Amino acid sequence: MTTPANVTGVSRVIISFYEALEARDWAALEKLLDFDIVYEVPQTQERVSGRSAYIRFNRDYPGDWYLEVQRAYEDDIGGAAEVSFRVGGEVMVNVAFFELSAGRVRTIRDYWPEPYQPPPGREHLVERY
Amino acid sequence: MTTPANVTGVSRVIISFYEALEARDWAALEKLLDFDIVYEVPQTQERVSGRSAYIRFNRDYPGDWYLEVQRAYEDDIGGAAEVSFRVGGEVMVNVAFFELSAGRVRTIRDYWPEPYQPPPGREHLVERY
Repeated sequence: MTTPANVTGVSRVIISFYEALEARDWAALEKLLDFDIVYEVPQTQERVSGRSAYIRFNRDYPGDWYLEVQRAYEDDIGGAAEVSFRVGGEVMVNVAFFELSAGRVRTIRDYWPEPYQPPPGREHLVERY
Repeated sequence: MTTPANVTGVSRVIISFYEALEARDWAALEKLLDFDIVYEVPQTQERVSGRSAYIRFNRDYPGDWYLEVQRAYEDDIGGAAEVSFRVGGEVMVNVAFFELSAGRVRTIRDYWPEPYQPPPGREHLVERY
């Protein structure tokens, strides 16, 4: 994982969070999480509440998966990450939004955008890559 | 559209960008865009190159759509936005990543995460909302 330049407060926490996940370092992860963390996947309307359940959710996540932060961003109370997620031969983009409380992750909204077919009618303005 | 507190450089450009789209103010939008803007939708692998094509892409976008920025974030060269997109009775989340050049939008990576069924095996850790 390459650390972007000029990384400060929130972005540093976000990058450490993904490093702990990638390393399966659950003790390091625990230190970054608020006791009452709420993790949500809006696309499935799933919610995991509390640090121990959230760590178990990640421990039990199936497959030999890898995460790499591409960019981390912040505002005054939280941040965003653009992450490459690799499992088996597949690479997906993961996007997550964070809010912190006293320097620890208090909420995560996690998005998994999947490929879809482009709608018709804009071929004259668009190229495919 | 409510403007988040403590909005500075990149976030200000991102919020103005969505305000111009929401207002269909193409002259205001043009001023925010680099001449060589590249707009990409990674999920469909579509790319629109250049300011005039990109403005036309938005002018021609079908439906009576509305955008509202929920949060805007930044790093040293760009930013991210979490946006509510409403068309007809449907509300979707839109997530976009921006890079700026000389204060204007040079690249956009635009994501449209859609609902999906949760994978089985984690019901004991998760509630649905």
